[in-house]
Amino acid sequence: MKARVHVMLKDGVLDPQGEAVRHALGSLGFEGVQAVRQGKVIELELAATDKAAAEAEVKAMCEKLLANTVIEKYTIEIA
Amino acid sequence: MKARVHVMLKDGVLDPQGEAVRHALGSLGFEGVQAVRQGKVIELELAATDKAAAEAEVKAMCEKLLANTVIEKYTIEIA
Repeated sequence: MKARVHVMLKDGVLDPQGEAVRHALGSLGFEGVQAVRQGKVIELELAATDKAAAEAEVKAMCEKLLANTVIEKYTIEIA
Repeated sequence: MKARVHVMLKDGVLDPQGEAVRHALGSLGFEGVQAVRQGKVIELELAATDKAAAEAEVKAMCEKLLANTVIEKYTIEIA
């Protein structure tokens, strides 16, 4: 079973990496880019076959390792 | 208009970052994680209002800046 996790900085948290991308896009002539946020995507291949169990396991992984929940939010998609 | 870009290493390319995550998950007791790939997600807020034009612009951004197309692949979602 495959799972995909998105980890993004929370909305109020400054994102200097995204800001650098926005600035670089402007320098390259891409006008009209109003905001950029950059995050991580993690694709997991799991042995679990039960969707609910897989989702619970991935949620525990996010809380323990994949995301820093003080400043980051995460979303989980199970495919 | 919002766009979301996923940038992942191509399938044949070694992903040491993903491998490190897999190993760390194993150390934390998460058995059954068979493979991990880590990539980037970039969320853009665009001034463009035409979906096709926005997609073409984001594709140009990917080719020029956001992805290293020698080793990375990208997918674009326009919302």
